[in-house]
Amino acid sequence: MWCARGRWKDPSPAALKWPRSSTCKPCALPPAAPEPRTTEMLVSIVTTVETDTEILLPRNVGRAHYAAILQRLHAVNPDLVAAIHEGDGPKPLTCSDILNGRSNRDGTRLEPGTPYYLRVTGLTPDVSQALLKALVEKPPAAIELLHHPLRVTGATADAAGHGWAGAANYESLAARQMLPGGSIPKQVTMQFASPTAFKQAGRQMPLPLPDLVFGSLVERWNRFSPLALSPEMRRFGAEMLALTRYRLQSRPVQQKNGALRIGGVGTATYRALGGDRYWLATMQMLAEFARYSGVGVQTATGMGQARRLEDN
Amino acid sequence: MWCARGRWKDPSPAALKWPRSSTCKPCALPPAAPEPRTTEMLVSIVTTVETDTEILLPRNVGRAHYAAILQRLHAVNPDLVAAIHEGDGPKPLTCSDILNGRSNRDGTRLEPGTPYYLRVTGLTPDVSQALLKALVEKPPAAIELLHHPLRVTGATADAAGHGWAGAANYESLAARQMLPGGSIPKQVTMQFASPTAFKQAGRQMPLPLPDLVFGSLVERWNRFSPLALSPEMRRFGAEMLALTRYRLQSRPVQQKNGALRIGGVGTATYRALGGDRYWLATMQMLAEFARYSGVGVQTATGMGQARRLEDN
Repeated sequence: MWCARGRWKDPSPAALKWPRSSTCKPCALPPAAPEPRTTEMLVSIVTTVETDTEILLPRNVGRAHYAAILQRLHAVNPDLVAAIHEGDGPKPLTCSDILNGRSNRDGTRLEPGTPYYLRVTGLTPDVSQALLKALVEKPPAAIELLHHPLRVTGATADAAGHGWAGAANYESLAARQMLPGGSIPKQVTMQFASPTAFKQAGRQMPLPLPDLVFGSLVERWNRFSPLALSPEMRRFGAEMLALTRYRLQSRPVQQKNGALRIGGVGTATYRALGGDRYWLATMQMLAEFARYSGVGVQTATGMGQARRLEDN
Repeated sequence: MWCARGRWKDPSPAALKWPRSSTCKPCALPPAAPEPRTTEMLVSIVTTVETDTEILLPRNVGRAHYAAILQRLHAVNPDLVAAIHEGDGPKPLTCSDILNGRSNRDGTRLEPGTPYYLRVTGLTPDVSQALLKALVEKPPAAIELLHHPLRVTGATADAAGHGWAGAANYESLAARQMLPGGSIPKQVTMQFASPTAFKQAGRQMPLPLPDLVFGSLVERWNRFSPLALSPEMRRFGAEMLALTRYRLQSRPVQQKNGALRIGGVGTATYRALGGDRYWLATMQMLAEFARYSGVGVQTATGMGQARRLEDN
C-alpha cells in the first residue's frame, strides 16, 4: 500500500477496517515534490476516421478493432505484440467499438462525410508509447475493420481534443487524490458507454454493482501500476458503497462463437456510507483510472468502456 | 413443500440440488380436481378517482393511501386493522401511489376531468374479503389523501377492467404451473412500476437482482400461503437465474423522516440457466404472485409494485 509520502506501507488488519484506518492519516511530512516525467504510462487515444462509401458493419467491431491495432503495433514493436498475445489476465490495452456508431438490428451503418471515432487505451509505458507512436506520431492512412478501410483524418491523446481522450500516469492520478489536505468527495458518477459485464461466482453479472466495479478497477490497477492499492477495495465496495442513482439498460454483445453476452450501459452514482480518506481517495482515483483501464470483462475488445462523469 | 398431487413433501437435500431434483417429477397420479372456491385469497383492486379542482400532491402518496385504506377497513373490520397494525414483517396488503400520476420536482399534479388510479392488494382471505367489501361492494364516495378528497368513480378486481387488477388464490396460481405435462418457460419478464428496493446484508440494494426478487417473493408466499414453497428459491435465484435483459432507473422515495430511499423502476428479464420443473414452475408462479404481493421493502406504502409481463 502506498501513502501520500510515496512510501510503501503494509496495510495492518486494523487499517482494513472502515470507517477508521491508520493508513491514510495525513502525513506529517510535506509530500515529496512530484518527479518530472517524460513518458506517460496511461494514454487514451481517439482516432477520427471516415468512410468513402456507405458501409454496414456488425454492431460490435471491438474485436476487429483490437486485431487492427495489434497489427499496427506489430510494425512498431513486434515483441510487445507477442507479449500481449501471450499474457494471462486482462490485457494492457483496450480497444473500443465505434464510439458514435448508431446501431440497429442490422448493424452499424457508416456514411461518407461523417467523422467516426475509435478509441484505444494503453495501461503500461511500453504499450502507451507504442500506441502513441503508431497512432498519433505516425498515424496510419487507414484502419481496416473487417476488410473495410476507414480513412484516418486525426488522432489525439489530448482530453481537450475529445472527451474520451487523455493522458496520465499512475503517480499523478494517485497524487491528485492522496495528497493531504482538502476534502475528498464521497460520491462519484460513472458512465458505462459500452456494454459492461462482470464475472461473479462463475456467472455473468451485467449490472455495475459497486463491489464488481471497484473490485475490477483495483485489480487492474494493481496489475499494471507500480503503486499498490489495497485489494480490500472490493470489500469496501460491497460493504460501504451504495448505488444512489442510476439509469442502466442491457445490451447484447455478439461473441466469437455467435453466442450473446449481456452487458449494461448507462450511468451510475456510487456514494460512500463511511470510510476515511484512504478509501475515498482510492475510490476517486480508480474512477479516473477507468477511462484508461475499462471495467469488467472483454475490455480489450470493446466492452466496459467507462469514464468518470463530473457530478453536478 | 407441496407437489402437484396436493401432498406435502419435505424437500430432501438431494431435491434442493439443481438442475436435478426428485421433488417435481410429474406425479404418476392425475392431479386432484380443483375444489370449488367461493372466496378469493388474493385480490388486486384498482379504484378510479377524480378531483374537482387542480391539486398538487407530494410525489409519493403511498403512505397516505395506506392510512386511508386502514381507516376504510376499520369501518368494515376493526379487529383486522388492529392485527395488521400489530403484525411483524410484511403486511398482508399493499397500497400503491397514484398509478398514472405524473410527477416532477414539485410533486404530482392532479387535474379535474382525468381519471386517476389507485391500487390495493390483499394477500390473505380476511384482508382480501374486507378490501372487496370496503372498496368494490360498497365503494366509498371519496378517498382522502393528505386532506384532499378524491371522488371515487369506479373500482374493479377484474383483470379485464384494468391491467393491474386481478383476483386469484394460492392454489390456482400453483396449480397452473405445477400440474404435470406441458413445458414451463425458462424465462420471465417483470415490470417494476414503483421504486423497488431490497435489504441485503443490512444495506439497501435498489436493483432487482434475481436472488433478491425471488427471495422476497418466496418469503412472502410462504408467510401468507397455505402451500409452502422451498425457501431455497432465493439460492436458486442467486445461482441459476441470469438477468438477460433490463431497462432500469433509480427513483428516490421520501421517507417519513424526510430521508430518501432509493428504488428502481423498469423491466427485467430473468432466465433460468438450468433447474427442473419444480424450480421453473416456482419461478413462474412467484412472478404471477408479484402482482398481489409486491416485491422488496415498503410494499404496504407504495414501493415494489410489480407484475409479470408477457414475453414477446
